Amino acid sequence: MTDFAADALRPFLAMDILKQARALEGQGRTICHLEVGEPGQPPAPRVIEAVARALPNPQGYTNAKGMIELRQGLAQYYEQQHGVAVDPELILATMGSSAGFILAFHAAFRPGARIAITRPGYPAYVNTLLGLGFGVVEIPVSAANGWHLTGADIARAYAEKPFEGLLFASPANPTGASVDRGGLADIVATCARLGITFISDEIYHGLDYRGPSVSALELTRDAIVINSFSKYYCMTGWRIGWMVLPEALIRRAEILQQNLFISAPTLSQIAATVALGERDYAEVQKASYAQNRDLLASGLRELGFDLPTSGDGAFYAYTGIARFSNDSRAFCEQMLEVAGVAATPGLDFDRTDGNGFVRFSYAGTRQTIEAALERLRGFVRAGG
Amino acid sequence: MTDFAADALRPFLAMDILKQARALEGQGRTICHLEVGEPGQPPAPRVIEAVARALPNPQGYTNAKGMIELRQGLAQYYEQQHGVAVDPELILATMGSSAGFILAFHAAFRPGARIAITRPGYPAYVNTLLGLGFGVVEIPVSAANGWHLTGADIARAYAEKPFEGLLFASPANPTGASVDRGGLADIVATCARLGITFISDEIYHGLDYRGPSVSALELTRDAIVINSFSKYYCMTGWRIGWMVLPEALIRRAEILQQNLFISAPTLSQIAATVALGERDYAEVQKASYAQNRDLLASGLRELGFDLPTSGDGAFYAYTGIARFSNDSRAFCEQMLEVAGVAATPGLDFDRTDGNGFVRFSYAGTRQTIEAALERLRGFVRAGG
Repeated sequence: MTDFAADALRPFLAMDILKQARALEGQGRTICHLEVGEPGQPPAPRVIEAVARALPNPQGYTNAKGMIELRQGLAQYYEQQHGVAVDPELILATMGSSAGFILAFHAAFRPGARIAITRPGYPAYVNTLLGLGFGVVEIPVSAANGWHLTGADIARAYAEKPFEGLLFASPANPTGASVDRGGLADIVATCARLGITFISDEIYHGLDYRGPSVSALELTRDAIVINSFSKYYCMTGWRIGWMVLPEALIRRAEILQQNLFISAPTLSQIAATVALGERDYAEVQKASYAQNRDLLASGLRELGFDLPTSGDGAFYAYTGIARFSNDSRAFCEQMLEVAGVAATPGLDFDRTDGNGFVRFSYAGTRQTIEAALERLRGFVRAGG
Repeated sequence: MTDFAADALRPFLAMDILKQARALEGQGRTICHLEVGEPGQPPAPRVIEAVARALPNPQGYTNAKGMIELRQGLAQYYEQQHGVAVDPELILATMGSSAGFILAFHAAFRPGARIAITRPGYPAYVNTLLGLGFGVVEIPVSAANGWHLTGADIARAYAEKPFEGLLFASPANPTGASVDRGGLADIVATCARLGITFISDEIYHGLDYRGPSVSALELTRDAIVINSFSKYYCMTGWRIGWMVLPEALIRRAEILQQNLFISAPTLSQIAATVALGERDYAEVQKASYAQNRDLLASGLRELGFDLPTSGDGAFYAYTGIARFSNDSRAFCEQMLEVAGVAATPGLDFDRTDGNGFVRFSYAGTRQTIEAALERLRGFVRAGG
């Protein structure tokens, strides 16, 4: 058995914080949960009803790409929301976006290939790539530039150390930064010029507070697009997402799916098919995140947190904590212990500069945000 | 983008057969489905009821290892069925056994490591290993030895070309071969002697027609055990399985799960927890497979198929077709086209000798088996 002690893999600190929060709750404390990025609401009522109807039947494997009804619904979604025609045969239903990443990496690259990501970024990017034997190149983005990634950033990083792929999310976790059409076109063109395979993580699409999200499919058919029902449709625990592949990769991705996963959960595929028609319900959730966003941003700023922009999308505030601490993990542990507010250390998203930041999720209820701000008031007044 | 044209990955032929079968059904034909290895029944009624009750609640992520109730239930299962005490902290709920394999390979080995498997064997073994960048060593097993793998087979293969891991299923797909306690002890001891990490695929446990299945956990704590609710509990499309890890690997597997998958589907975890208490229902299904097994074996033998043993477990008959054809794919296509009976070419399971074999699944109803045999009678009489 190989010794992996020296390995670069790291746990999600968010998960450790969650574990500590649960332990405190076990002692009778009430905790405001702003650490985990998941909606507090169930999926739309019609989704629940459809699943309840299907439940008594045997739920066998579907074909590897997923139920045709779901893939046709997704094609319709691209037509209606993005004005692009997508062949349902290029769509693959996945076990959450998580499985989508695994399929994307192994469909497009050989083990050992280097993939670029932004720093800060979603921690699973680094860990999945390293865990699967790929290399990682981090491209720093900064608060000064609204956490935006540009074609020039990509070209600069590429000149220093070339890479075969770019995995990029807009809106982004943890910063909420979104690119507009011009910004995405710049990134797509830069990748095309340098021969970089572009993987567009669009999991936070729909949760945009400054105009509709732009899909990479509006600009190119060479990108791999990854998306999920987890966030916009409130279906995290259902583990259902999808990907759209270039024609050159779809057969390989399908074969990988057959072998690596067989098919996505059948009840979740049924649920997802119905969820696509329930955007009104999703928009109600989004409206409450939008309110939470303003409430949290102004509350945090008032308390001395450093939050120059509120984020264009998703449901996170990534705030500087320079006034309170230079150790985000210790700060989060103390904030949890003393104030009963759970949030995620910036170190989770940025191993270099993350000690100066904390991510608060505003996917929960208004009451939770209000209670958290009230508690933080006492906490920072007492010196953090 | 890398060119993978020369790649060794192959599709499941079973899936292609299924696609052709569906096309014929689209033309109004009725097809006897003996190609896919999944039970025709839904899970136990109490499982359905529990899921229906949970449905209206938000189904968020669980912790990475899975719900504690499920892991405690699994620990109890090992106590009751196998007489071994397993710490629930060493158990991890997975998205089917499929995700279990990915976690096992990446927890125990570095990319490029060679893993041995039997030939014939489950096709996803080869494809998953190759797809993820591992090497494969095939150890041939033969009908003459009841398709059993022995310690001597392992040592012989190892002497020719060393490998770091052995992935072995008992009962096996496609042969149904099971090892008894002595046979498993021989395999475990050989692996220990040669420093090979043993991965025991126990997905067909419970579906044993010659005495209870022996878990590797009864013999060693150094093995990685992989199992699933798909087969015995009739939950294929639910995508829920589990694994038991050695202490030295559990933390790494947990971190990989956090990053690669986050957690297994929540409703499926709820369903699985209840299913563990519904073994009486599972035993009723098993009794019908046992009847199908006898019916199919004697029917196939009567028609001239070569089936020296009926298989000790699972729900497959892996039969020689020497009397009819030396091209299992063409034979299966013709059998589907002419007789309307879908079965899987042996090539799926054995790229070297598989052309001489076909796998029939008897997981369906007695009526399906009877109808298939009746159709095959006309088919082979007409010369195959």
